[in-house]
Amino acid sequence: MSRRVALGFGAGAAGFAAVQGPAQAQAAATLGGEAPLAATVDVIVVGAGFSGLTTARGLRAAGHSVVVLEADDRVGGRTKPGKIAGETVDLGGQWVGPAQTRLLALAKEYGVAVYPQFTTGKNIVDLAGRRATYEGETPALSPMALAEFALAIGRIEALARKVPPLRPWEAPDAEVLDAQTMETWILANAKAPAVRSALRLLIRTLACVEAGEVSLLGMLTMASAAGSFNEMISTRGGAQDAMLQGGVWQLAAKMAQELGPAVVLGAPVSAIAQDDQGVTVQAGARRWRGRFVVVTAPPSMAGRIQYQPALPPLRDGLTQRMPMGCVIKVHVAYARPFWRTAGLTGMVLSDRTAFGPWFDHSPEGGTIGGLVGFFAGKSAQLWAERSPQARREQVLKDVALYLGDEALKPTDYIEEVWAAAPWQRGGYAAAPGPGALTAFGPALRAPVGRIHWAGTETAEAFAGYIDGAIRSGEHSAQEVARRL
Amino acid sequence: MSRRVALGFGAGAAGFAAVQGPAQAQAAATLGGEAPLAATVDVIVVGAGFSGLTTARGLRAAGHSVVVLEADDRVGGRTKPGKIAGETVDLGGQWVGPAQTRLLALAKEYGVAVYPQFTTGKNIVDLAGRRATYEGETPALSPMALAEFALAIGRIEALARKVPPLRPWEAPDAEVLDAQTMETWILANAKAPAVRSALRLLIRTLACVEAGEVSLLGMLTMASAAGSFNEMISTRGGAQDAMLQGGVWQLAAKMAQELGPAVVLGAPVSAIAQDDQGVTVQAGARRWRGRFVVVTAPPSMAGRIQYQPALPPLRDGLTQRMPMGCVIKVHVAYARPFWRTAGLTGMVLSDRTAFGPWFDHSPEGGTIGGLVGFFAGKSAQLWAERSPQARREQVLKDVALYLGDEALKPTDYIEEVWAAAPWQRGGYAAAPGPGALTAFGPALRAPVGRIHWAGTETAEAFAGYIDGAIRSGEHSAQEVARRL
Repeated sequence: MSRRVALGFGAGAAGFAAVQGPAQAQAAATLGGEAPLAATVDVIVVGAGFSGLTTARGLRAAGHSVVVLEADDRVGGRTKPGKIAGETVDLGGQWVGPAQTRLLALAKEYGVAVYPQFTTGKNIVDLAGRRATYEGETPALSPMALAEFALAIGRIEALARKVPPLRPWEAPDAEVLDAQTMETWILANAKAPAVRSALRLLIRTLACVEAGEVSLLGMLTMASAAGSFNEMISTRGGAQDAMLQGGVWQLAAKMAQELGPAVVLGAPVSAIAQDDQGVTVQAGARRWRGRFVVVTAPPSMAGRIQYQPALPPLRDGLTQRMPMGCVIKVHVAYARPFWRTAGLTGMVLSDRTAFGPWFDHSPEGGTIGGLVGFFAGKSAQLWAERSPQARREQVLKDVALYLGDEALKPTDYIEEVWAAAPWQRGGYAAAPGPGALTAFGPALRAPVGRIHWAGTETAEAFAGYIDGAIRSGEHSAQEVARRL
Repeated sequence: MSRRVALGFGAGAAGFAAVQGPAQAQAAATLGGEAPLAATVDVIVVGAGFSGLTTARGLRAAGHSVVVLEADDRVGGRTKPGKIAGETVDLGGQWVGPAQTRLLALAKEYGVAVYPQFTTGKNIVDLAGRRATYEGETPALSPMALAEFALAIGRIEALARKVPPLRPWEAPDAEVLDAQTMETWILANAKAPAVRSALRLLIRTLACVEAGEVSLLGMLTMASAAGSFNEMISTRGGAQDAMLQGGVWQLAAKMAQELGPAVVLGAPVSAIAQDDQGVTVQAGARRWRGRFVVVTAPPSMAGRIQYQPALPPLRDGLTQRMPMGCVIKVHVAYARPFWRTAGLTGMVLSDRTAFGPWFDHSPEGGTIGGLVGFFAGKSAQLWAERSPQARREQVLKDVALYLGDEALKPTDYIEEVWAAAPWQRGGYAAAPGPGALTAFGPALRAPVGRIHWAGTETAEAFAGYIDGAIRSGEHSAQEVARRL
């Protein structure tokens, strides 16, 4: 076992050796040797989102002692509960699809029911100046545009199928795919303004970044990890198929409840030191000691921790190149789901609004009405700087443009500005810019000595989703258990 | 004056208001109210590079009290002295051009002489399988390739001329220019393999990133700030025109000497809190209190400080989207500049080597021989993970390939792995990925309440150069002095 550890260290040794000077001494100062030792455990887990909680659960089930240090005053990470019109809703991740078997298993284990996303009626699409309604999954574009759209999606699928989700740099022509933005690909593969607009909107909604910001290979990797691009954009049978009664966040709460005092809230990890015997993790004025540490924060947030010794260049470089997407999630409640009586699903896909897309989110039975939607990408960047009042006015104005003036009279309203959330600084997940995956990708999952990396970004399947977070936690629990 | 401060806060108010929950309390905990207060000054400067030292100098000259907190145990930031074969050389920034008037003025002020880069003889170029020698600035490509190369540079210049360096998002078609990588532009504007290779090599050498990683608008902005792309790539009369006798780093040392005990080494800033009256800055176990703070660290490093209240989304998002370039700088010493006797300048531009380009760096008079060169971009990422011995062998092998076997017998060798430097984590400067400048660029320089941002990345001219660092310091000193 000590042999394994030595091997683990070996991998990063060159990087460590290259770090000279006072870094060690300073990290030691950062760690504050005088800070009291709160506890000694086998494994310290940083972050109490789905990944961290699943890691801790798995390790404890295997007989190891754990502590989960959470910076925030709640568990759940990028899932979070909110109250609107008396209902508990998800201010973060919420949907689940039939292929997301790990999340479904967890819901089943805790006896939480799943109910389908409402899709009865007509969706509205308004792209490149042409407004139409349609049923089902295929947006109503002009016949010409529709053919081009289908061709583009087909090409994305063909490319994505060749990308190994854990090793995208091994895809055919990986360097070429990673040296361009998704926008460059769209300009080369779609001519009709409506198709370009549709593709840009999809990227924005799926990754919360502009097509001109994210690597083509990055998007293909997400699609590959989700099974397909179509899986990501689909409602029925796809990733937006269903929701959890009472919200997905409660699964995190239940896992945390089981872990009991092993979950420590309000413990923002500021420094991690490792030596031959183990790791010392500092949060606030306290220190924890363990044999290993699993960091589940997304790369850009993990990069804000001080490491001793400093991280190897490849890992540090990665944390500089995986920015979080930018999103504001909004729930609006109405006295009734008035769009349903007009034969509409409530879903609107428009390139004319700051807010959107949005979807029906009425409680089952439809006694009251609910909509849920997003400011995403550049729109979220702009609107995150404005006041909650201004955002609310914009949301209602945008919704009314398509669903009518009744939209202007909500009974309740709630939002979450994820770009301002102090320990996430964005959402849904990290989105690699061009060049990041081919050059720095191997550092996403490779342990650095006694430090393991988890989080939905590291998942083999459904990276960026709650299901991926669970998978990453299961994986890291196994990975670390093998070294214990 | 208090009115100005209020206005400053107003700009970020929406962002601050959007941050909820325990961030404030936790940042306060991070700041450790019990830590002793080391001093109270008008302005706290974070970072003792050229930008920070110039800021402090300017403020003190205007009658204000300052402290400069430097994480490292030396001043100079991305400049650093090294000893090779008894000579002091620059392990970081080194060259100066005639247009870099602020750096030249500083050298003159401190009586440091400037001497020209050696350019007598023939350069070697080896691109796309064709090796040739040439004199002067224009690489020896085939006539066809040369015409295409000239056309491409001309197009870059035409585009760069229209980019306002401080407001690149206002350039014509800024969104289009920023939604693509430099590589995408190269593929569309150069067909000959040698031209593509030359352009990629130039980007790598200028920005220490791959063409497939950096935004086209980002590169144009650097060129615009430097006066032109030609200015950046030129030796005689350009940005690589000359060097300082004894190294440029000594200017930082001299500024620090003047500032005396106001420069505090080994003080890595971990947290910055601001309130209505001023700022509290924590470094190690000490705190400093000031009316304002100027953070001169590059955006990605500045993002690793904890802020209270948390930074507005736009500023935080910027810190996630301005990765440092990746570079390893190498000096090799020889008994004599043997390439000169062969009629060569020593300069080699090749797409066949891991190391390069490299240049003559013999001391004036040429009694001994010296070369200086780089691993840059992806090559630096790869080689930063390997051992110093492996790098040295590669360097000598690569040099010998062009300058002959005498290159295998150096008398001395020294290197600096900037990607591993704990407080820089890269170099020469930050390189924006696609989408960063148009969406997040305004946050590069806009003060957040009592926090001002400086550093070479913020400079109106020669951003990314030492000259730009000085300019940014002069600017921030004036900017803050107006509020005191």
